[in-house]
Amino acid sequence: MKSLSIFLAILAANIFCFAQNTPTAIIEDFIPSTCNQPGQEYPKVNSQGYARFRIIAPTADSVRVSLGLGGRGGTKLMQMPDTSWMGTTEGPMDEGFHYYNVRIDGGKFNDPGALNFYGSTRWESGIEIPAHDQDFYALKNVPHGMVQQVLFPSPSTATSRRAFVYTPPGYGKNPKTRYPVLYLQHGWGEDETAWSNQGHANLIMDNMIAEGKIKPFIIVMTYGMTNEVKFGGMRNFKIDAFQTVLTDELIPYIDANFQTVAKSAKRAMAGLSMGGMETHTITLNKPDIFSYYALLSGGVYSVEEISKSPSKPKLIFLSCGSKERPDGVKNAAIALKGAGINAVSYVSENTAHEFLTWRRSLRELAPLLFN
Amino acid sequence: MKSLSIFLAILAANIFCFAQNTPTAIIEDFIPSTCNQPGQEYPKVNSQGYARFRIIAPTADSVRVSLGLGGRGGTKLMQMPDTSWMGTTEGPMDEGFHYYNVRIDGGKFNDPGALNFYGSTRWESGIEIPAHDQDFYALKNVPHGMVQQVLFPSPSTATSRRAFVYTPPGYGKNPKTRYPVLYLQHGWGEDETAWSNQGHANLIMDNMIAEGKIKPFIIVMTYGMTNEVKFGGMRNFKIDAFQTVLTDELIPYIDANFQTVAKSAKRAMAGLSMGGMETHTITLNKPDIFSYYALLSGGVYSVEEISKSPSKPKLIFLSCGSKERPDGVKNAAIALKGAGINAVSYVSENTAHEFLTWRRSLRELAPLLFN
Repeated sequence: MKSLSIFLAILAANIFCFAQNTPTAIIEDFIPSTCNQPGQEYPKVNSQGYARFRIIAPTADSVRVSLGLGGRGGTKLMQMPDTSWMGTTEGPMDEGFHYYNVRIDGGKFNDPGALNFYGSTRWESGIEIPAHDQDFYALKNVPHGMVQQVLFPSPSTATSRRAFVYTPPGYGKNPKTRYPVLYLQHGWGEDETAWSNQGHANLIMDNMIAEGKIKPFIIVMTYGMTNEVKFGGMRNFKIDAFQTVLTDELIPYIDANFQTVAKSAKRAMAGLSMGGMETHTITLNKPDIFSYYALLSGGVYSVEEISKSPSKPKLIFLSCGSKERPDGVKNAAIALKGAGINAVSYVSENTAHEFLTWRRSLRELAPLLFN
Repeated sequence: MKSLSIFLAILAANIFCFAQNTPTAIIEDFIPSTCNQPGQEYPKVNSQGYARFRIIAPTADSVRVSLGLGGRGGTKLMQMPDTSWMGTTEGPMDEGFHYYNVRIDGGKFNDPGALNFYGSTRWESGIEIPAHDQDFYALKNVPHGMVQQVLFPSPSTATSRRAFVYTPPGYGKNPKTRYPVLYLQHGWGEDETAWSNQGHANLIMDNMIAEGKIKPFIIVMTYGMTNEVKFGGMRNFKIDAFQTVLTDELIPYIDANFQTVAKSAKRAMAGLSMGGMETHTITLNKPDIFSYYALLSGGVYSVEEISKSPSKPKLIFLSCGSKERPDGVKNAAIALKGAGINAVSYVSENTAHEFLTWRRSLRELAPLLFN
């Protein structure tokens, strides 16, 4: 491609963007998103949080990216003189990770420039708007734990099921050292890859351990939509199938195969969104298994629920983004504290129901666990 | 969608297929490919090896799948009465795994129905044509090893680099048990995910260990295109950058962090295609590090090369598909054997330069290692 056509394309993309808006000074410091496929220039992001897309489909009639201003159908791309399709989001996006897809002539595809992440029950494109606090989940030159894929037997579903297990740096060096375990669940439409891929849970842990902010523990992540084979939404969701896999199959497998402290006092469960709903139900159904409960954008516990439970949790952690319903989690934590329960709430500033909320929630939760 | 339109669509797809060909009796026993995304019906495959695709892009002008008969531009899809695009490969495909992509109005995209696999320096769609011998890489109810993601420090590239490590079932239970290690490389345009994702190396090992066909060993897989950041093809490839990462950084890291036998006599290197070329070069450059050498569709060793080397390999394994150049590997092995070197060749029947060749090659290689 000629550099003149690149210039024209960028110019045209900006004109398009200005045309939609009261003029905003878009700073031309766009760089490739950190979620791009190797060697790919687009999509790009700038320091203000704008995202710019470029899709090659010379004879397409229309190309639209699902990201942009909610409710307005995302960002419509415009065909450039070089036949590529380009466009910039109408406004800045929230910091952090976003799923998206590309509509081409009425079909839904992924952006060939971006890596794919499992969300909405499909592998979707992902983009990362640099966050001012992105350092806490950055890949740094510190000792790294490992993320292991395990295939555990599940008689109840007659399958071998997959889980990912984060073990902290130094794990296994001393066979006598045993670690607490956090069972950490994804949200609806995601799977057991979410917390490592888009959540960077392993890097958050590595960094906090290196800084001495937490004591090492194991994290186990598995698939939580056990009975949602047809992806029929949450309406008919029943907890039983997943609860059986988790409590009767996965936990015994982990305790038999990893250096865990196989006791309720050293076991936590947390989940985001639907995973929070699962955490809520399972911790109350099985009060002897977990001692630390955390719901990330996933509802609250009432005082009544906890009072009725035969076991008293050592911690209840409730969080969400400031663009969700922060008063709900704040008030629930206040009420629980008033009833003598160790409850903590956390609100992630300027984020919604997205992964930056949950990365930050894990960072806030981790130091409170297993003390 | 109405069932009538499904019927018409299938009928039309068949008419289209027959129209291109001398009529072939396509057996209508199509089932979803095992590489499909969860819940996705298409692409489908039948018992004869035909693949059938369905893409939603109502207002597209043309949709074409890169798979089909080589050199003829793949399979052109036809728009159905329900506006979806459908088509069936002109003939049966080779058994095993194939990468592909979808051309929509001149752009290259992935099939939203299929999972993605890293090949050709991008995440591509993948499809699996059921192989008559697929049982050896099937997920079975046997004890499973683990596949661990490690991030190892690499001063030479100033990065933390990723490797995947397969540890066999029972690994770690006895801290005194130590295992040999196979370093196993992907091909050009692939990465360290290839041997687990599309190669099923872990399942091949689990199954052979369960059947008592091999003694357990560790497999380490890392990224081999260290200096190919611009993906400029192989012309300017130099081995130095990768060789340094492998021999000076990764091997010491693995020996320090896993229960290995840290000796040349218990270390093997193998690679497919470009990874074979790397194996060839590095084993000759560093004769003290590996004792078992294997090139899978990746060239041969000459008697002269081995005779000049100060170390004598315990095994040279050369393989390829019968649709590649099998005489090359057969003759090279015969020549090496004639010179007193323990050389073995293997030819995968009815496969080309694709992953079924390499899955089978690993199955043939594994029992010969570390004896």
